[in-house]
Amino acid sequence: MKKAIILFSGGLDSTTCLAYAKHAGFDCYALSFRYGQKHQVELTIAKKIAELFNIPHQIIELPTCQFEASSLTNTHLTVPDFDPSSQSIPSTYVPARNTVFLAHALGWAEMVGAKDIFIGVSSIDYSGYPDCRPEYIAAFEKVANLATKVGVEEGNIKIHAPLIHLSKAETIKLGLELGVNYALTVSCYRANKKGHACGKCDSCSYRKKGFLELGVNDPTPYYS
Amino acid sequence: MKKAIILFSGGLDSTTCLAYAKHAGFDCYALSFRYGQKHQVELTIAKKIAELFNIPHQIIELPTCQFEASSLTNTHLTVPDFDPSSQSIPSTYVPARNTVFLAHALGWAEMVGAKDIFIGVSSIDYSGYPDCRPEYIAAFEKVANLATKVGVEEGNIKIHAPLIHLSKAETIKLGLELGVNYALTVSCYRANKKGHACGKCDSCSYRKKGFLELGVNDPTPYYS
Repeated sequence: MKKAIILFSGGLDSTTCLAYAKHAGFDCYALSFRYGQKHQVELTIAKKIAELFNIPHQIIELPTCQFEASSLTNTHLTVPDFDPSSQSIPSTYVPARNTVFLAHALGWAEMVGAKDIFIGVSSIDYSGYPDCRPEYIAAFEKVANLATKVGVEEGNIKIHAPLIHLSKAETIKLGLELGVNYALTVSCYRANKKGHACGKCDSCSYRKKGFLELGVNDPTPYYS
Repeated sequence: MKKAIILFSGGLDSTTCLAYAKHAGFDCYALSFRYGQKHQVELTIAKKIAELFNIPHQIIELPTCQFEASSLTNTHLTVPDFDPSSQSIPSTYVPARNTVFLAHALGWAEMVGAKDIFIGVSSIDYSGYPDCRPEYIAAFEKVANLATKVGVEEGNIKIHAPLIHLSKAETIKLGLELGVNYALTVSCYRANKKGHACGKCDSCSYRKKGFLELGVNDPTPYYS
């Protein structure tokens, strides 16, 4: 079995991505990151889901100071409600987050002998974060192959983003086919300690819309 | 003054790079990383040199487990002497190190409002590490501009590698012209607690060769 590193937050997208990679036959290693996110409950959830998938799970402790410009991390800033009229990148944007995550994943991949890294980003039904777009993923894949011993000697390091062109409804459809229990997953930027969701942030709004568009029951526990 | 992030180890190359950036008029922020390197004395040295340059200096604490495959970090592996006949990447290679460093630097850059990142890599007189080559730096620069809010909105994030085509002798010549005191810098992979050098590892060997080729006194304190 080919090994793969899965960037895994315990949310709807990365859980679908993990299910996809496992179904595709990869021997999966899940990585989560503690970077000062307010919704740290996602790490507890991620650990539980990884256990259910019976795969190794590692939480990487990152320094938090560089991420403090974001409302997702800075306690002096408020995570805003979803604003469908906004055209700008929202305050929940975390500087260079996916690049930091993928860089660490790349080191882990080389350490465990994996050449496949999965990331659950989507450029449809998303907040406009630049590091979720196909051109970014392609550019990072090029970096990965140029940066590493295994990339130079063997090539073929792949950054897989299987959800990148899927709407949230299509992602949920895929996950349900793969047996994902979305009641367990937490996407909310303002999740409470129980992992219950606000229903109003960007992440909740896209998630809600996905279930609605697909016409299936939304199993998310909301606290408001 | 334009702000710049300088990846700074306190060694010969990164100190020259810092002097170069400062001379070019940048308002410099130095970043060092603790990643389990055996020669952690470099962090103390880096702090001292940053103080002499009168610039802010931050040590970023990274998780160490992903870097353990290297003889530079793993206490069960020995840092080898320089082997001029070897054609392969030596065991001191650290998986994805410069990608992790540059990813964190990119986040810092966006946080402090810098669009310029300096890294003191060279692809001449070097150990063949893949993440020191021009094509790697160019690929990461592309990532930086695609990954970030500032990259997408304004463009022109630059990864500067001013030493990349310089021999070690040329780097030393540049640094001496800029007033660098190389007696303070520590390049050795097996530096002792005083920052004295072994004189035999890859890093020492290229450094020694540089002073020799340039025909200037080598001020490095050696312990053997």
